[in-house]
Amino acid sequence: MKEFELIDRLTRSLPSNECVITGPGDDCAVLDLGITDRLLLFKTDAVVEGIHFEPGTPPAKVGHKALGRCLSDIAAMAGTPSAALITLALPPGFDAKYLEELYGGISVLAKRYNVAIAGGETISNPGPLLISVSLLGWVTRGKALLRSGAVPGDAIFVTSELGGSLMGKHLEFEPRLAEASWLREHFPIHAMIDLSDGLAGDLRHVLKASAAGAELLATAVPISREARRAAKAAPTAKPALVAALTDGEDFELLFTVPSRDAVSLLDSWKKQFPKLPLSCIGKITSGKEITIRDQHGLRPLTVHGYEHFA
Amino acid sequence: MKEFELIDRLTRSLPSNECVITGPGDDCAVLDLGITDRLLLFKTDAVVEGIHFEPGTPPAKVGHKALGRCLSDIAAMAGTPSAALITLALPPGFDAKYLEELYGGISVLAKRYNVAIAGGETISNPGPLLISVSLLGWVTRGKALLRSGAVPGDAIFVTSELGGSLMGKHLEFEPRLAEASWLREHFPIHAMIDLSDGLAGDLRHVLKASAAGAELLATAVPISREARRAAKAAPTAKPALVAALTDGEDFELLFTVPSRDAVSLLDSWKKQFPKLPLSCIGKITSGKEITIRDQHGLRPLTVHGYEHFA
Repeated sequence: MKEFELIDRLTRSLPSNECVITGPGDDCAVLDLGITDRLLLFKTDAVVEGIHFEPGTPPAKVGHKALGRCLSDIAAMAGTPSAALITLALPPGFDAKYLEELYGGISVLAKRYNVAIAGGETISNPGPLLISVSLLGWVTRGKALLRSGAVPGDAIFVTSELGGSLMGKHLEFEPRLAEASWLREHFPIHAMIDLSDGLAGDLRHVLKASAAGAELLATAVPISREARRAAKAAPTAKPALVAALTDGEDFELLFTVPSRDAVSLLDSWKKQFPKLPLSCIGKITSGKEITIRDQHGLRPLTVHGYEHFA
Repeated sequence: MKEFELIDRLTRSLPSNECVITGPGDDCAVLDLGITDRLLLFKTDAVVEGIHFEPGTPPAKVGHKALGRCLSDIAAMAGTPSAALITLALPPGFDAKYLEELYGGISVLAKRYNVAIAGGETISNPGPLLISVSLLGWVTRGKALLRSGAVPGDAIFVTSELGGSLMGKHLEFEPRLAEASWLREHFPIHAMIDLSDGLAGDLRHVLKASAAGAELLATAVPISREARRAAKAAPTAKPALVAALTDGEDFELLFTVPSRDAVSLLDSWKKQFPKLPLSCIGKITSGKEITIRDQHGLRPLTVHGYEHFA
């Protein structure tokens, strides 16, 4: 991880200019190019065979994941996606059918959210298949939801159920664009992020950006059926709650709102999105750490989970 | 090349939307996001170790090339670059000094043209080092210079001297941003492209987009010192003129203007850019092919050169 910390440091000292509202370190870059009522969102994300998907994965799902990850980042800022460029780095010997299905998966998702695939590039790669997506979107000026707005006392919400995404969901998830836009329009959301590194890790990003802490309630964390099944399947597997807290690639939304809005938000949500669970999992604190409360008391939560039998 | 033709076909049938003015097939995508007086330019381009640069290349030069290629495409539309995202796919075992120098090369060039590096991503790559750059720029509405505007009778110009770029220039070239903006402001440029595939190949892109042909004058093609030197160094080497016509990665501008403007353009250019040669190399015709005239007469030019001893 030392390399990646270095890159983080290097990236933060790179040149900026007058158009950059939010640079490295949030879900998307936010740019002001002089549109009266809008800011631009700019995002890039890559998937690599053997790292982000296994060889043998149906190519349409690979395409879905490649574009979907970027769309999820636009959702995390409560933005609207607009146009994408696709960079394909192809190992030798690729066949036509694979490429057609890959672009097919990208196309179906792009059409669903009215995203133009405005071009891109294909290069030969002596390494594995790599797909890099650049996505441009926009958000109403002053309405971008950043990681940095969480305030002590805020209620913390997550959409859907968490954990076990690698059992399938990571290739089929639906970016929460409609939900994020609805939230932005109807409630005073303070901070938002999409869950890609795991709840504990992504919440930590929000807390770092907001200079705050959080207290979670173990029984309130929504656990996916896949995480429960995996926990039962092998005695050495992660407990289901730990999976929900630490597994990556859920691509759900985590956001905070003032606690006084929590109940009405839950009520409105159920009417608006009756099929998608929404859970209040805890609150923002004035501390620096994440703690989790279960039947044994309150203890620290790390990105690797917590000492649940301490 | 069959794969790449397929990709070309697949890419052109991907979803579009109302914001796309120019999609796949020009130097950049041109997007209308509702800015009164401007259109957005959106470009992505990748370099891979072993293909676009050799192992052992000084990392600052690799960084320069990675960003410079995208800047050259913005120049080819007569645009102004604004913000970039950098995707690094890193093989295992990268050292800090290499990365610092790589970002250093990117930074120096970015600062020179007031380009913000607004973020990006670093991933592990089991393959070679790959650097993908996404660049956003803008151009005054109605002023983007496309490949498609060439008209029979136009004079064809190229900047600098061509050929032999792989001997060093491909890692050090200067994107012609200032020159392209000046041209756009002062002359009725009909079509423009940057030379990345070689003069013959890139001129062909212009002709295809413009449904026209071209006639070049062999003695007018500006040949670089490197191309001349390489031609002399080995009896089996490309003749210098063929190198100037077919070598890739010159990153110079090729553009067309009405012939009545050719002389005044050359005069003004010499005052504005005294150190950068500009050559009128021929004219656009109503044919479909490129022909080249030398002391033996007129003959067809292909992307591989021409039969100069026919």
